Amino acid sequence: MSTTTMAPEMREVNRTFDEVVAAGNVAALERVYARDAQILPPGAEPVRGLEGIQNFWKSARKPLKVTGCTLRTLELQVRGDMAYEVGRADLTTSASSAPIVVEYLVAWRRVDGAWRWHVDIWNTSS
Amino acid sequence: MSTTTMAPEMREVNRTFDEVVAAGNVAALERVYARDAQILPPGAEPVRGLEGIQNFWKSARKPLKVTGCTLRTLELQVRGDMAYEVGRADLTTSASSAPIVVEYLVAWRRVDGAWRWHVDIWNTSS
Repeated sequence: MSTTTMAPEMREVNRTFDEVVAAGNVAALERVYARDAQILPPGAEPVRGLEGIQNFWKSARKPLKVTGCTLRTLELQVRGDMAYEVGRADLTTSASSAPIVVEYLVAWRRVDGAWRWHVDIWNTSS
Repeated sequence: MSTTTMAPEMREVNRTFDEVVAAGNVAALERVYARDAQILPPGAEPVRGLEGIQNFWKSARKPLKVTGCTLRTLELQVRGDMAYEVGRADLTTSASSAPIVVEYLVAWRRVDGAWRWHVDIWNTSS
């Protein structure tokens, strides 16, 4: 399996996501998702568009009492203005001592020079 | 959203998947998944490698009593030897009159001239 090293600009996008999930400042998701991005959440209908995605995360993080998020990139393939990333997210919550482990696949695109998540889908092993 | 028309060769891959899920002939998944592909199933650990994926589908389709599968491509983006596809699968089962609807994201790669699924992740809305 060939894995491309993640560019600093893409790492910054992922760190922004971690911060938003930890702190709830969903406005900053404009630096993560493309304006016409879509998410395919488990147990919920797909959501398209930045505003809907911001609302989704605002609602989703509260009942879980999320206190932190760490994305770990396991594989990244980049071709021109497109990339995909396979990874795991560790979510820490104040409701449980064990982190929630999430598997994800993100399709990235570079639009107007900025790398953004275009499609984001995830699930859990349990 | 720009959507690239799916090449006949890629459509054939998806039709093969439909047939395998309907009929259980998992050997034919070698014409769907790359040898080093990985799947990220909901409710189960990730599986890497064609043989493991074949075993996964052999086991997974039985308890659901699946009788048919129809993949519907909603978005396809192709760049060189890489592509991603967003879609929905309708699974018909003899256990229920309503189809099970699955959302998926597949990262495709063309290896040795043949388009194959490299990463496959899915979940359900309910």
